[in-house]
Amino acid sequence: MFNKYNVIVVGGGHAGCEAAASAANLGSSVLLITMNMATIAQMSCNPAMGGVAKGQIIREIDAMGGYSGIIADKTTIQFRMLNRSKGPAMWSPRTQNDRMRFAEEWRLQLESMPNIDIWQDTVKEIIVRDGKASGVVTSLGISIESDAVVLTNGTFLNGTIHIGEKRFGGGRTAEKAATGLTEQLVNLGFESGRMKTGTPPRIDGRSLNYTLMEEQWGDEERGKFSFTDVPLPTEQRCCWITYTNEAVHNALKEGFEKSPMFTGRIKGLGPRYCPSIEDKINRFAERDRHQIFVEPEGWRTVEIYVNGFSTSLPEDVQLKALRLIPGFEQARMFRPGYAIEYDYFPPMQLDLTLETLRIKHLFFAGQINGTTGYEEAASQGFIAGINAHQRITNQHELILKRSESYIGVLIDDLVTKGTEEPYRMFTSRAEHRLLLRQDNADARLTPIAHQLGLVSDERLEHVKKKVNAADNLVDYMRKQSIGPDAINPVLARLNSSPVSQKTRLFHILSRPQINIYDIAAADNSFQMLLARHNKETIEQAEIKVKYDSYFEKEIEIVNKMRRMEDQEINPNFDYTNLVSLSKEAREKLIKVKPRTLGQASRISGVSPSDISVLMIHMG
Amino acid sequence: MFNKYNVIVVGGGHAGCEAAASAANLGSSVLLITMNMATIAQMSCNPAMGGVAKGQIIREIDAMGGYSGIIADKTTIQFRMLNRSKGPAMWSPRTQNDRMRFAEEWRLQLESMPNIDIWQDTVKEIIVRDGKASGVVTSLGISIESDAVVLTNGTFLNGTIHIGEKRFGGGRTAEKAATGLTEQLVNLGFESGRMKTGTPPRIDGRSLNYTLMEEQWGDEERGKFSFTDVPLPTEQRCCWITYTNEAVHNALKEGFEKSPMFTGRIKGLGPRYCPSIEDKINRFAERDRHQIFVEPEGWRTVEIYVNGFSTSLPEDVQLKALRLIPGFEQARMFRPGYAIEYDYFPPMQLDLTLETLRIKHLFFAGQINGTTGYEEAASQGFIAGINAHQRITNQHELILKRSESYIGVLIDDLVTKGTEEPYRMFTSRAEHRLLLRQDNADARLTPIAHQLGLVSDERLEHVKKKVNAADNLVDYMRKQSIGPDAINPVLARLNSSPVSQKTRLFHILSRPQINIYDIAAADNSFQMLLARHNKETIEQAEIKVKYDSYFEKEIEIVNKMRRMEDQEINPNFDYTNLVSLSKEAREKLIKVKPRTLGQASRISGVSPSDISVLMIHMG
Repeated sequence: MFNKYNVIVVGGGHAGCEAAASAANLGSSVLLITMNMATIAQMSCNPAMGGVAKGQIIREIDAMGGYSGIIADKTTIQFRMLNRSKGPAMWSPRTQNDRMRFAEEWRLQLESMPNIDIWQDTVKEIIVRDGKASGVVTSLGISIESDAVVLTNGTFLNGTIHIGEKRFGGGRTAEKAATGLTEQLVNLGFESGRMKTGTPPRIDGRSLNYTLMEEQWGDEERGKFSFTDVPLPTEQRCCWITYTNEAVHNALKEGFEKSPMFTGRIKGLGPRYCPSIEDKINRFAERDRHQIFVEPEGWRTVEIYVNGFSTSLPEDVQLKALRLIPGFEQARMFRPGYAIEYDYFPPMQLDLTLETLRIKHLFFAGQINGTTGYEEAASQGFIAGINAHQRITNQHELILKRSESYIGVLIDDLVTKGTEEPYRMFTSRAEHRLLLRQDNADARLTPIAHQLGLVSDERLEHVKKKVNAADNLVDYMRKQSIGPDAINPVLARLNSSPVSQKTRLFHILSRPQINIYDIAAADNSFQMLLARHNKETIEQAEIKVKYDSYFEKEIEIVNKMRRMEDQEINPNFDYTNLVSLSKEAREKLIKVKPRTLGQASRISGVSPSDISVLMIHMG
Repeated sequence: MFNKYNVIVVGGGHAGCEAAASAANLGSSVLLITMNMATIAQMSCNPAMGGVAKGQIIREIDAMGGYSGIIADKTTIQFRMLNRSKGPAMWSPRTQNDRMRFAEEWRLQLESMPNIDIWQDTVKEIIVRDGKASGVVTSLGISIESDAVVLTNGTFLNGTIHIGEKRFGGGRTAEKAATGLTEQLVNLGFESGRMKTGTPPRIDGRSLNYTLMEEQWGDEERGKFSFTDVPLPTEQRCCWITYTNEAVHNALKEGFEKSPMFTGRIKGLGPRYCPSIEDKINRFAERDRHQIFVEPEGWRTVEIYVNGFSTSLPEDVQLKALRLIPGFEQARMFRPGYAIEYDYFPPMQLDLTLETLRIKHLFFAGQINGTTGYEEAASQGFIAGINAHQRITNQHELILKRSESYIGVLIDDLVTKGTEEPYRMFTSRAEHRLLLRQDNADARLTPIAHQLGLVSDERLEHVKKKVNAADNLVDYMRKQSIGPDAINPVLARLNSSPVSQKTRLFHILSRPQINIYDIAAADNSFQMLLARHNKETIEQAEIKVKYDSYFEKEIEIVNKMRRMEDQEINPNFDYTNLVSLSKEAREKLIKVKPRTLGQASRISGVSPSDISVLMIHMG
């Protein structure tokens, strides 16, 4: 029925959509297979994109020509730049999104791409020939040939939903689970595990009393994810904040004996940093309240997402406890929260390209690798799609470095260290986070994407111009001075000590109290110069000046580490005879097959002395 | 968890949505229970509303304050008034709709209604107490009390999907079946049966060659379903027409041995007037081609609905045959067509109110009653919702007459005659169809809905004004004459014989070649009079004049029949001792419990002599 495709992508969630798009944009013919075309790009959990570290990931995907940022921008009902009060490395864009629109826009995006076909079906089996993935077999019994396969099965593999003591098969609320694939992969020698995640109840917003909650509006001067020109909605919707209390906690505790989390029915580990409300109460018994974000699910719907109240307690316990939260006294549910257990494949079975070590041309992306989060999934899909294409066309692989992207950190962490609980990105996971900012994702990554052919010359040119313009502004500030008469009144007004002689603008701007427009107000020609630049460029220059010394130090560290970090190891390197290695190191090295000395050094169980052995051996 | 509701509606399709809305608008507190909130008001099959006889039903629902017409209007991508060349009784509005928008607008409509709550779950059981439906039990194990229950389960009850030799449980593509309810109802003494319906494959519109098909555009001067002011989209989308041929038929025949229709795997009867393509080929072997309507599924999606190609042949046979249709040479499928078998309950088990005879306060609407079609379902839901409310508040029931509405015909047919194959409305089913036109649905039914409290005084006033204005125009034409000098040039131009003396406008307009504007062009004061009326009123007056004699005759017949038709029979009337009745008539009358002599006369097996016996007995 089908001609052979270059790449088959299994699953139409965040990972699958990006995987299909990136492979297609590189020129592969792609078949996206989804169980239900009506649920492509469903936001299974919260109607939001980005957030701390995650917003950076979306910016990185966007900088490289992915679509998650564009779709999120188009469907934004509220935008906030989190952590504005902290340093720019912490600034994290986050949007609330219209759930239906988000899914619709992704589907229309895929439909607009000539290289992408879509087929609604369930994949039961991977066709493996000569140790290579060569297609799939579906539940309709159809065999479809391909050069590569990308699995992005989300929570669907043998998904089991839990609500209190009730348990039933399902890949997501009201959707079927997928069976067969895990069993085949295990037979092929893959190790599989079980993870758990959960989602809060959905509430009828008409039953809430918002006057008892704090309003939370989006940024007045709103930003966006995409570096491209995306038409943004002009309005924003309000969210609200409220809090649990001891009465809520006591009501929840009454359900603990029926909790699948505590009775041992759920075996899989859940996301540590996105715990259920019962987990929070249990683990942080000392806290007498937890914050609840009350988030609308779209522009016009009354459906509300209760962020912070993920739970798999019995539905009556959920409702009883909810109604003790200020503003929720009369709350009505549309559906209860639930927990879901699903199969994943410990990601140390992958190469840094996201290709499996065991079966060539087979790639995994998203929750199947033990991650949690739309952004983590999308970025893996994006990379897997690229590497699937590169692999089958014998072109160079794309491995992003830890020093150049969160995506690099994410994949290196997964592949090198594995994960036994749902992996979520944090700024703290990125040792070079000062350099991995949301504002410079384009400067960091667009050139790489351009080299692959994922972004146009024009777009690269645009990025270069922006970088140059900011650098020129910084240079100007390094060279030009301002006299005490001009700047001291400004400094006085801002409680910054006066200067006694002509001082470089650069030094003035380094002071924490001063922003770039304060200086411009005192310096006519600088003001005129700024007027010729856009907001982004000016912000970029300001960040470069203010954090110059930190950045310099960080770059120095990166450069120092680079020699080891980049020192390649032959993938066929034979560790078995290297007796000076510890036994554990030898085993792990054989399992992970690190690409570089840097990667090797991060494998748990590989000690600095093992690294020395390797260094000596490799010269 | 739940307070008691007045009415619980089970199912969120066309029937369920209208049922929830009408009961809520009358003042009942309503809980709509749906398996999946994301699929409320899904158009499971074609993305279109209305059509012959069905368009009239939508107009009738709208005239009474239902929402199907409004939602269809808002989401119309193409409007056509079918049968314009025939008499006005045949004029039938039909829209193509944006599938996603249609579902979204219905959901938002329900969300906007304060009396309606929504709960996502599956109903497993009806709570029956003292022979009355008093609530439901869900698959989560929750009992919810209510005064009445309306079942609108569509194709979900024990749904089985067939594609070639493959068979699996499902209520709709990619959705689960519902189990448990049929079994309970059968245990309660209900008779259940099995029906079958089907849907064509969905196609990637990018793979079609439209230059090989005929374009089919909507009406330039477009109409709408709703009598209210609905903001209409300003654009329309094109559809296309193409044809099967012998090669297509031969390709399909190759799959016949694997067809679940022909191998006997499917036991249920399918819709006679909406047959699968294999049925058509089989039943109309003499025809060498069948028409195929190529319909877009929305404003922006490339998904195409292949109207006329419903099939459950193996998916490879579907594709092979499709590709032999002009324009489909390169066709790619998104998903195959399929057949679905599901449980229904023969509708002679219902009262004309759609309440079941066996269990009080339990109502059935839609496919569960053996009908097919969104419009048939919606109208039943609308009536069931009304009667559920009226019943539990001890108010008078709503039974529409056959002489006043298609809805009346539909329900009377179902309840009185039953159906063994999916029942679809046709104009031919309505003996008084001349009176049951789409243009006068408001005049016929808005007063009835107003009496119930479903439409506002203002709206009734509006309808009255429109009717009066048309009547006044007709009166004017009856009284005013036009001289030969003025009208003969017009008549000559339109090939109508000249008049020799002053003639009433009414008589001129009665001529088939002449329309009302032709006369106005020759009569200044008439032109000025028309200018003071809107298009609808003028059309109404024109229809009344042109078909006056037919309407008069029809009304006479209705009045003559009324005596028998309206002669009520006591629902507790004891037929057992009426020995002069034939045995069959006695059995059927006991089963159906007809409300009137008219209804009794339509029961199959009840002969005119049986009716005479009844008439004599009742005086």
